[in-house]
Amino acid sequence: MTDIGESESDISTDVSALPMLSHSVSYTSIQKPPFVVSVIGSGNWGTTVAKIIAENTRENPLLFEQKVRMWVYEEEFEGSNLSDIINTEHVNKKYLPGIKLPDNLVAVPDLLEAVQYSNILIFNIPHQHLEKILSQLRGNIDPRARAISCLKGLRVNLDGVELLPDIIQDALGIHCGVLAGANLAQEVAEQRFSETTVGYPLPADYKPGDVDHTVLYTLFHRPYFHVHVIEDIAGISCAGALKNIIAISVGFVEGLEWGDNAKAAMLRRGLLEMIKFGRKFFPGCLVSSFTEESAGVADLFTTCTGGRNFKLAKIMAQTGKSAHEVEKEILNGQSAQGLITAKEIHELIKNKGCEEEFPLFETTYQILFHGVRIGILPYMLENKWSISKPNYSS
Amino acid sequence: MTDIGESESDISTDVSALPMLSHSVSYTSIQKPPFVVSVIGSGNWGTTVAKIIAENTRENPLLFEQKVRMWVYEEEFEGSNLSDIINTEHVNKKYLPGIKLPDNLVAVPDLLEAVQYSNILIFNIPHQHLEKILSQLRGNIDPRARAISCLKGLRVNLDGVELLPDIIQDALGIHCGVLAGANLAQEVAEQRFSETTVGYPLPADYKPGDVDHTVLYTLFHRPYFHVHVIEDIAGISCAGALKNIIAISVGFVEGLEWGDNAKAAMLRRGLLEMIKFGRKFFPGCLVSSFTEESAGVADLFTTCTGGRNFKLAKIMAQTGKSAHEVEKEILNGQSAQGLITAKEIHELIKNKGCEEEFPLFETTYQILFHGVRIGILPYMLENKWSISKPNYSS
Repeated sequence: MTDIGESESDISTDVSALPMLSHSVSYTSIQKPPFVVSVIGSGNWGTTVAKIIAENTRENPLLFEQKVRMWVYEEEFEGSNLSDIINTEHVNKKYLPGIKLPDNLVAVPDLLEAVQYSNILIFNIPHQHLEKILSQLRGNIDPRARAISCLKGLRVNLDGVELLPDIIQDALGIHCGVLAGANLAQEVAEQRFSETTVGYPLPADYKPGDVDHTVLYTLFHRPYFHVHVIEDIAGISCAGALKNIIAISVGFVEGLEWGDNAKAAMLRRGLLEMIKFGRKFFPGCLVSSFTEESAGVADLFTTCTGGRNFKLAKIMAQTGKSAHEVEKEILNGQSAQGLITAKEIHELIKNKGCEEEFPLFETTYQILFHGVRIGILPYMLENKWSISKPNYSS
Repeated sequence: MTDIGESESDISTDVSALPMLSHSVSYTSIQKPPFVVSVIGSGNWGTTVAKIIAENTRENPLLFEQKVRMWVYEEEFEGSNLSDIINTEHVNKKYLPGIKLPDNLVAVPDLLEAVQYSNILIFNIPHQHLEKILSQLRGNIDPRARAISCLKGLRVNLDGVELLPDIIQDALGIHCGVLAGANLAQEVAEQRFSETTVGYPLPADYKPGDVDHTVLYTLFHRPYFHVHVIEDIAGISCAGALKNIIAISVGFVEGLEWGDNAKAAMLRRGLLEMIKFGRKFFPGCLVSSFTEESAGVADLFTTCTGGRNFKLAKIMAQTGKSAHEVEKEILNGQSAQGLITAKEIHELIKNKGCEEEFPLFETTYQILFHGVRIGILPYMLENKWSISKPNYSS
């Protein structure tokens, strides 16, 4: 590591001293570096992203305040508070054991204290906790802050699809982008080579000096974690949710031992339906976000060669058991996100009367929830080119 | 099988009777169905494609002459001529054992007899035999015939790249398309679900009734073998050759156990370089041929999860042995096509002065042939977005 602004011993981990930051923040002025960064969430991915950020803030003192605060949902682990363990031992022993964290990364158990004075908020919590966190934050953050969501998925209902960054943006009134990619957290934490995609359109009130693509690149890029910044939040978000349905269809084929050609076919047809879905519900999203980005084709590749959704489907195909039985017996009650997504997407496209445009998604749903035989998949996909081939002009 | 025009017993397998076809062919008139189809080549992929074609000609007697001739390089197998085995037992015991062939598929050991009166020629021979076959065919085929090449690869030299369909076209004066996809021959022969891509731009002298996309779809599509017909021969051909270099880079990462994120990253960066290469040397080729077709992303997925190139690179990474040693010791002297392609592409892009635009291809070459360490790959790929991101307007 080069370009370290302070020696390590200068960095206080006294949480009470944190609000005393090295530059003054005015809520009415335009944002200017050095930016203060907070991470909301400290699971395995949250801690991993916080580690990356703290490595980069230390190396770029002109751009970022070195100290990075990470909100920790306080819990006891081996007789100590998790936040104390992180701040004294610099390891998140519960969620990311064995990975040394930079000592300029500071765990803060109080949510509002963790985000006070922050210019850049990184959301990295489970989807289901988002509402509660947002209601606590409302009115308690710098309204000129910028945000990045590392949350997975979409919010799907019968009438349409909401993007999680939009939900954050609407709740807090702050501009929010997204980060996603072929990023198994443990591999990134171990600094094995990975890539990611950041989606961040510049906000309407952007002025030079504000958070931009260069700032975000510098915040996330590491020699082992390559970043590409684009503008398409919707494409990244759709790919991140729909990949789980496709992984299920690939798992079915794997379980029946149809071979590599068939797995590649499911992946490809799934990719086309992903694009079609994205373009239908978010006409501005780009085909290239799906076909060329880490958050698109690369994450799809990773998800379709392993993971919980793939495994569940494979076991269903091998044993003839129902999705529910496999979840209960094999996955120890852990839910496979693809099941939920397949159901939500089915209900949406049925309500919109467009199931026939998504034969892979729809057939996967029917196999999962209505006992339709897997062997029907090729027939459902046959002669649907005119339907399944995405219709776009770019 | 439905829609069979004749009962099976009506179909003669007497080779000497073959030229007596059921419609007259005039060399000066425009082509009209029923089309007579010949397959040149009878290896495992050649026999598999011939099987598909014979299944389809039987089911579509208005469009195709039922009998399909397959040229067999005559050799002895278990004391009999291979062509006799195929014509009496309806199995290619040497190259596709265990797979029953339709009895309207007839093996013909004489090349010119196999193609006489044919309207559609399917080339399916090893690359290295192409010149010899073309010189034998020259002047001995219907000049209005149409052709499809199932050959793999490109012809690369210091000055540029030639497409194999163009070589066939130039040698014989007949219009030639291409067929490629995620098609492991054995899986297709066993009728496991697969997809393929046919590239066929309509020829300048096309008139209604001639071979078109519908004819080719009907000739190749099966319930277990789904066909998409496009026009982009160059995109399909580039993808089919360059995938082998990418599989080597993925194999390196697999051998070093860098994990799934890194494999996905190599695949993605390789895909981008593939597109960039295609657009540079064939400006008319389409991004979607790489990112959305079976011959593109699906075949890349299959090639990067197995096969000889992937395996060679994985063993190199695990053992520290040279490519040459691994070829000799592990692959029993079989050559890995990716080695040859990596070298040819390196020489071309070096001669053109554009190695820096292809950091993955170039670094893979340097690792293979000049002992550069695999660990350098992420550094070579870093900060090259502006270079590696394909520059195209579509």
